[in-house]
Amino acid sequence: MLTMQDALARLTSYWTDQGCLVVQPMNTEVGAGTLNPATFLRVLGPEPWRVVYVEPSVRPDDSRYGENPNRLQTHTQLQVILKPDPGNPQELYLGSLAALGIDVAAHDVRFVEDNWASPALGAWGLGWEVWLDGLEITQFTYFQQAGGINLDPVSVEITYGIERIIMALQDKNHFKDIEYAPGISYGEVFGQGEYEMSRYYLDDADVAANRQLLEIYAGEAQRLIDAGLPVPAHTYVLKCSQAFNVLDSRGAVSTADRAAEFGRMRRLAGEVAKLWVARRDELSHPLGRVSPPALATASAAPAERDGARLLVFEIGTEELPPSECRAARDAVEREIRSGLAGTRLTHGDVRVFATPRRLVAVVADVAAREDDHVRVVRGPKLAAAYGADGAPTKALEGFLRGQGATLAELGEASFNGVQHAVVTRPEVGGAAAEVLAPVLAKVVSGLRAAKNMRWRDPQLSYSRPIRWLVALWGDDVVPVAVGTLAAGRQTRVLRTAASPTLEIASAETFMETLAFHGIVADPEDRRELIVTGAQDHVYPDGRVDVRGEAALIDQITYLVEAPTPLLGTFDESYLSLPDAVLTTVMRKHQRYLPVRSSDGALLPMFVTVANGPVDVELVRAGNEAVLRARYEDAAFFYRADRETPLPVMRERLQRVTFTDRLGSMADRSARIASLALALASSLGLSSAALNRAAALVKFDLGSQLVTEMTSLAGIMARDYAMHAGEPRDVAQAVYENELPRSTGDALPASLPGALLSLADRLDLVAGLAATVGLPTGSSDPFAVRRAVLGLLAVHRAHPALGALSLTDGLREAAARQPVPVSDEVLAACADFLAKRLEQTLAEEGNPIDRVRAVLPHFARPSVAGHLLTQLASVTANPDFVAVAEAVQRARRIVPPSTVAGFDAGVLKEPAEVALVAAVGSVRDSLAAATEPDLLRFTEVVSRLVAPLATFFDEIFVMDEDEQVRAARLGLLATVRDLGEGVLDWSELRLS
Amino acid sequence: MLTMQDALARLTSYWTDQGCLVVQPMNTEVGAGTLNPATFLRVLGPEPWRVVYVEPSVRPDDSRYGENPNRLQTHTQLQVILKPDPGNPQELYLGSLAALGIDVAAHDVRFVEDNWASPALGAWGLGWEVWLDGLEITQFTYFQQAGGINLDPVSVEITYGIERIIMALQDKNHFKDIEYAPGISYGEVFGQGEYEMSRYYLDDADVAANRQLLEIYAGEAQRLIDAGLPVPAHTYVLKCSQAFNVLDSRGAVSTADRAAEFGRMRRLAGEVAKLWVARRDELSHPLGRVSPPALATASAAPAERDGARLLVFEIGTEELPPSECRAARDAVEREIRSGLAGTRLTHGDVRVFATPRRLVAVVADVAAREDDHVRVVRGPKLAAAYGADGAPTKALEGFLRGQGATLAELGEASFNGVQHAVVTRPEVGGAAAEVLAPVLAKVVSGLRAAKNMRWRDPQLSYSRPIRWLVALWGDDVVPVAVGTLAAGRQTRVLRTAASPTLEIASAETFMETLAFHGIVADPEDRRELIVTGAQDHVYPDGRVDVRGEAALIDQITYLVEAPTPLLGTFDESYLSLPDAVLTTVMRKHQRYLPVRSSDGALLPMFVTVANGPVDVELVRAGNEAVLRARYEDAAFFYRADRETPLPVMRERLQRVTFTDRLGSMADRSARIASLALALASSLGLSSAALNRAAALVKFDLGSQLVTEMTSLAGIMARDYAMHAGEPRDVAQAVYENELPRSTGDALPASLPGALLSLADRLDLVAGLAATVGLPTGSSDPFAVRRAVLGLLAVHRAHPALGALSLTDGLREAAARQPVPVSDEVLAACADFLAKRLEQTLAEEGNPIDRVRAVLPHFARPSVAGHLLTQLASVTANPDFVAVAEAVQRARRIVPPSTVAGFDAGVLKEPAEVALVAAVGSVRDSLAAATEPDLLRFTEVVSRLVAPLATFFDEIFVMDEDEQVRAARLGLLATVRDLGEGVLDWSELRLS
Repeated sequence: MLTMQDALARLTSYWTDQGCLVVQPMNTEVGAGTLNPATFLRVLGPEPWRVVYVEPSVRPDDSRYGENPNRLQTHTQLQVILKPDPGNPQELYLGSLAALGIDVAAHDVRFVEDNWASPALGAWGLGWEVWLDGLEITQFTYFQQAGGINLDPVSVEITYGIERIIMALQDKNHFKDIEYAPGISYGEVFGQGEYEMSRYYLDDADVAANRQLLEIYAGEAQRLIDAGLPVPAHTYVLKCSQAFNVLDSRGAVSTADRAAEFGRMRRLAGEVAKLWVARRDELSHPLGRVSPPALATASAAPAERDGARLLVFEIGTEELPPSECRAARDAVEREIRSGLAGTRLTHGDVRVFATPRRLVAVVADVAAREDDHVRVVRGPKLAAAYGADGAPTKALEGFLRGQGATLAELGEASFNGVQHAVVTRPEVGGAAAEVLAPVLAKVVSGLRAAKNMRWRDPQLSYSRPIRWLVALWGDDVVPVAVGTLAAGRQTRVLRTAASPTLEIASAETFMETLAFHGIVADPEDRRELIVTGAQDHVYPDGRVDVRGEAALIDQITYLVEAPTPLLGTFDESYLSLPDAVLTTVMRKHQRYLPVRSSDGALLPMFVTVANGPVDVELVRAGNEAVLRARYEDAAFFYRADRETPLPVMRERLQRVTFTDRLGSMADRSARIASLALALASSLGLSSAALNRAAALVKFDLGSQLVTEMTSLAGIMARDYAMHAGEPRDVAQAVYENELPRSTGDALPASLPGALLSLADRLDLVAGLAATVGLPTGSSDPFAVRRAVLGLLAVHRAHPALGALSLTDGLREAAARQPVPVSDEVLAACADFLAKRLEQTLAEEGNPIDRVRAVLPHFARPSVAGHLLTQLASVTANPDFVAVAEAVQRARRIVPPSTVAGFDAGVLKEPAEVALVAAVGSVRDSLAAATEPDLLRFTEVVSRLVAPLATFFDEIFVMDEDEQVRAARLGLLATVRDLGEGVLDWSELRLS
Repeated sequence: MLTMQDALARLTSYWTDQGCLVVQPMNTEVGAGTLNPATFLRVLGPEPWRVVYVEPSVRPDDSRYGENPNRLQTHTQLQVILKPDPGNPQELYLGSLAALGIDVAAHDVRFVEDNWASPALGAWGLGWEVWLDGLEITQFTYFQQAGGINLDPVSVEITYGIERIIMALQDKNHFKDIEYAPGISYGEVFGQGEYEMSRYYLDDADVAANRQLLEIYAGEAQRLIDAGLPVPAHTYVLKCSQAFNVLDSRGAVSTADRAAEFGRMRRLAGEVAKLWVARRDELSHPLGRVSPPALATASAAPAERDGARLLVFEIGTEELPPSECRAARDAVEREIRSGLAGTRLTHGDVRVFATPRRLVAVVADVAAREDDHVRVVRGPKLAAAYGADGAPTKALEGFLRGQGATLAELGEASFNGVQHAVVTRPEVGGAAAEVLAPVLAKVVSGLRAAKNMRWRDPQLSYSRPIRWLVALWGDDVVPVAVGTLAAGRQTRVLRTAASPTLEIASAETFMETLAFHGIVADPEDRRELIVTGAQDHVYPDGRVDVRGEAALIDQITYLVEAPTPLLGTFDESYLSLPDAVLTTVMRKHQRYLPVRSSDGALLPMFVTVANGPVDVELVRAGNEAVLRARYEDAAFFYRADRETPLPVMRERLQRVTFTDRLGSMADRSARIASLALALASSLGLSSAALNRAAALVKFDLGSQLVTEMTSLAGIMARDYAMHAGEPRDVAQAVYENELPRSTGDALPASLPGALLSLADRLDLVAGLAATVGLPTGSSDPFAVRRAVLGLLAVHRAHPALGALSLTDGLREAAARQPVPVSDEVLAACADFLAKRLEQTLAEEGNPIDRVRAVLPHFARPSVAGHLLTQLASVTANPDFVAVAEAVQRARRIVPPSTVAGFDAGVLKEPAEVALVAAVGSVRDSLAAATEPDLLRFTEVVSRLVAPLATFFDEIFVMDEDEQVRAARLGLLATVRDLGEGVLDWSELRLS
């Protein structure tokens, strides 16, 4: 059996053979090998660097006293940096697995999109998790930025999770059982340390001492930066990071602390990086400079040909993320089509296919050459070409000069019915290869993704590296060259194939060659294979909910290019876990399809889709082991949680800081409870269920399972509450308190749930606005925007809550904060609320004028929503239009300062008298309404339309008699104000 | 070429093959691999443990900005722990060198005594430095105690200094030139870090911040100890150590701080160790328990033999320290002789030889058997054996019963002329083998050294492990068994021999077999070989000062068993360095013999003595490279120092803390200067030389060379002062300020030197007594005792200083301290001074009564010394004896309270009158004396002898008349007080 220490030695030796230096782990605690200066500093600047090292990585948060089979406070990373990108890092990596004795052809090794970013380091990169039969064993990243500095050249970072790999290789279920050295287990060597360091990180570390350490370390880091010493400064940044992590694992870091500390560390790391770069410059780069990669030369143009042939253009990539792969297929098709349209080559169908590793465009019947043709160059209008004397005008002379033509060559032609002077130029059509090359090159260089990266190519930038191009027109290579890539006839099939690269004789044989080697280029075909394969596997016991899992199936379709669906099973006992737990693990973590019986119950099975002709039994067993480990974890937490009384979980919230100034999660939960009860009381909606739910609210944040999988908050609350014997409506309410968790999520259905949900969000907004401020720009670490959107959605969903003003609610929430919340803050919150409502309603497709017209009701979004609905119908009603026009007209005539009301005695004209009477009647009718209602408003106010029209026709408002003028204006102000409190009429655009 | 990273991999792989685990370096800064818990904690307790790991070891004090070719702030250790001792760790170690490609037979690999202790860890062990051609490459230790706990089993610790080994193997002169990886140098990879971390440790680390860190770390360590968590507690002890080292390298640690911090760390480390042991017990020792080693069974007794044969007894050891080797030779001879004397075996000459690896006893003509003989058991006297009735008395009956004999067996014999009843017992003599076995076993088990260690033997304890026994009487093995060792006929020759173990046929061939294999067992022979070899090598150019280097030659004699003297040379340019620098390096660091020309000038050569038939050229080159590196270091410092103006060096003393409360070394130097000038002035000894020397005093402590080699303090002061153009007497005085550096060292010859020396020591004593207190018990970290002994010696050496009272000097010194020095403290100092003087004078062989008699003059030791000298002659003078007796008689008669003086009027008796007259005359004569002088005192006071004798004969002192009695007592008190201020007469014993 390969021991862990042998595995480390083999990997080190393998990478040494690939030209890597070996260095030692960092001699201060680090959370990952990335932090070691051998990565963080060395990826900066132009010097080459290849290194391999072991890094015991300390994650205080992962402390589990050594009890959890898969979680350790210190796990062992093996870190490799290849700078520059060698061009084949994935292949080198697969070689390292082979060096460990892993048969990469038999196993299902996959590169699954996983981008990496460390906000505290100002660092990010794009890449993958590498999966071995569903087990994440390696992080593989093209490092793009460190310390806020763009990396040039880019480094490849490969980080192996050694314990996981060894557990898989040795078939162990607990890290303690790993054979570390011959006859000696991991637990025997490191077990006590795991326990004791867990104790330190979780229970015993002194918070005050670690806070002091953090400050001292940050101070030293800054001093050393000021002294121009990046190396010791970096060490102190690392010490900051560890002290911070200790505080975090002790529950002593509030969200505000976190943001502030990340900010400080990012700033320090950025300065360290800058200094390092400057120092290496001063030292003239002791390790030399990476020479820029050579640009590719296109292959020679083929000989002249006749006859149309098939064009195949393959862009070979490293594994693209599914979403990018889909988008790229469309983009390539668009670009090919428009590119061909820009030529005079005739062609047939254009089809584009995409797999994670290739984009293939297939164009039928591409002509061998463009037709020859005559180009007509338009000159001035004939009318302007010659003077009265028949001599060429300056305009014509200029045109001729520009074209290098003489008068004798001039012709005439009609453009849009106007005669112009023209020059004609005969042009010979280009050969297909020659014409296609720039078109295809542009397709490659134009590829862009949502997130783009650089690799070792001076001209290209895309979601993942582009590694090869095949461009064949019939038997000929189209001489495409872009960046470091020249197209040829060599394609690549599965990396594990006997011959992973193949020569393609002609475009016509390309697709069948791919297919022969198992590659299903067409996503539709893959989807079909996955769906039918999955259903075949589970038939007749179960079924895969193809419609319900459509998003997941789409994703899987773009995760494989040779789909091999496999059925796996898990122990029935895990079915006692809640569905959400089981399916969350399957879908989110593993991309497995859940299997259900005909009555919808989950079955102890899953379908996973491997890539290529793997050893099915081996891969099945591997995936089953991964799922077992994950379920074992979950079951462990679930059991422990269910054995924990709800008050005990609730109690634990005292140890979870919300923010430094807003107290613990327990404080917040108490505020939510109090606020929800107050709101209910003011609305006459108090209930026993609400009372009880308020006492429990958010208790599941103190459960182990939710601590592990935060997306289960609320779901577990309901489960645990039911299990503890709470009434169903109470359990439902504590679940609904968390709703909506995202835009488009379900909303609370019950009133207790809705009240809690509102109280939760009102508390969040009021407290944060008063302490850290409302979000500006893109930064919103506390998701205040989402909370506000939730407030609006919940309010709109519940007419019973219509009477509740959210600004009143904010005032109530403010009164419960442990900090003062000023009127200015509340005003800012109201404004923020209004803006979000405006945005939401507009995004729902409502015309912006109507949205703005109802916005005065933002504090009661359900009212605003109702009015908007009414507006949609009422604006077609001529009466409403007339009313609205009247009100707007009144607003235009009457100065804003004019108060409604008039001396009826001075209004003697009949039109005046009639209007006065009508206004009186309308006002009386409207007075009875408690809530704004456009239909009723229209109906009532339409009575004014005729008298008002007469008034405007017959009466000159601005009479010379001041009294009369005042009365007339006052009368119109009264009309104007009839619409007050209903809409902001000035915003409404009437067509 | 073997790169450094390959070397690490090879060593790791070698030790893995020997069953070692591989672990990672510690992820917090450590000064040595020993601190890693894989050593410090794992050597505790009964569990087996074999481990190998790399440890980048941080020594802030060794920071040199990467400029020094051999000194790094972080060097790379490779650490191996073998627990338990495998029995052949040296052989395993040599195997590891072979794994590196080192031909251990061609090179001179030596195990040179070097014991290891870490006061801060409560840890120690005995072992060696391993030398490769004179280069220290490895520390090899049998770990005896850690955290104050005795280790059982003992661990073998092997620590490789990787950079040094690689520099030697790659033949590099600067660590930066090491080929670290193919094509990449050490400097390219680590150069910038060396520079920057040096900057941090030497210049930029914030002292206040690191002090705070130290306190916080110590606090966490203690808290974790209290929480019962040794693993995190240990981490914090390590962090304490690093913070302390940083403070130290920043010059911010006073001697007092150091002692206090070491104390705290030792206490913390001790508690961590205890806790670890307790926790492992609780965990029932996850790695099992080392099984106790099997005791040896003696070989079968040989057949009966006739005739005397040679006895050879060889005790094979690992390399003994030279002093222990010499002592052991004597001890073995003594034990063999007395052991044989306890048998009835006849034998011839006993000779014992010793080499570092063996003690060999050779006994000629040991008889094959003891003679048979009759043992006579003595009973009661015949007179008491039978009663009056002739019947046996109870005494006789008891004797018979005790002997199991009957009356019939009783005989008679005469003892000292008295007839006794006896019983006779015939006894058969034992065979040689049988008789010798216990005698020889006892020799082994009785071996004891000044420092003893344990290894894997339950019964033996000695300076170094005993690994084999050869015991041959003629052809037969003497069946000796002791501990795990059974004697046989297998000896070991040089480890590098083709067959390192050999069978010995018979005792008679033993010595010649050893000799045949190059082993020179007799130290006298080896010394001869070394001396003649050395002289041969250097003839005719130079000579080795055999008498002057006797101590070194003695040491070398016991460092090798197959001496191979080699001549090495060094570059003549190094001769510009001071002799003391060159010879200190040669003798102390390298055990090389310096070579001088006939006029005594050093030649650029040295003689080193290799062990065994090495490749002479290779070993010579290696040793030359080592010396070159050391001289290069020294020359580097020397040049830099000589370019530094004296005031700049003096200025640097401000950065060197003396103690926290007594200021910097600059403060101390200023106090010394002021005090020396004041003393000189009071004695009328002021001089220009003193004035100048006082301004410079101790400046060389600010030089780089003295910082490196503190034993050169003073010597370098003189050199640098001369170089700077100071007058010769000034240069001499700053040198003599440091004298005496140890007991028996030279004393200042000049008065300015003596005054500085006294001022230096007075300042030290007064300041420390007032702050940390005078030394008690064995702890004397500031060497106050040595300073006091220096004070006494210097004072006694300079009669010109006789008028100076050291207590007055202390008072003067006290007045200059930055802290108050109370009268109590000064009194304690005086007492301490007196005690040291008493001890010194007694150790010089003076009778204690005389020492005590002169002790009242302790404050002026030269006076005390002078009086003691006088006493030695004067005590033979009858006049003195009579005077002394008279004084003592007067003291006995007169109560101590009686005041001298009398009313002469009442003294009428002639004897009284005569005495009064004589006393008056004597008193007048004595009054003229300014200094006590026993010869003069005797001469003068002897006039009193006769009148006093008459007085005592004729006068009854205690007369009834009170007046008369008082006058007589007053007269005698006057006699008594004549000796006052000369001696403490009461102490003097007159024979």
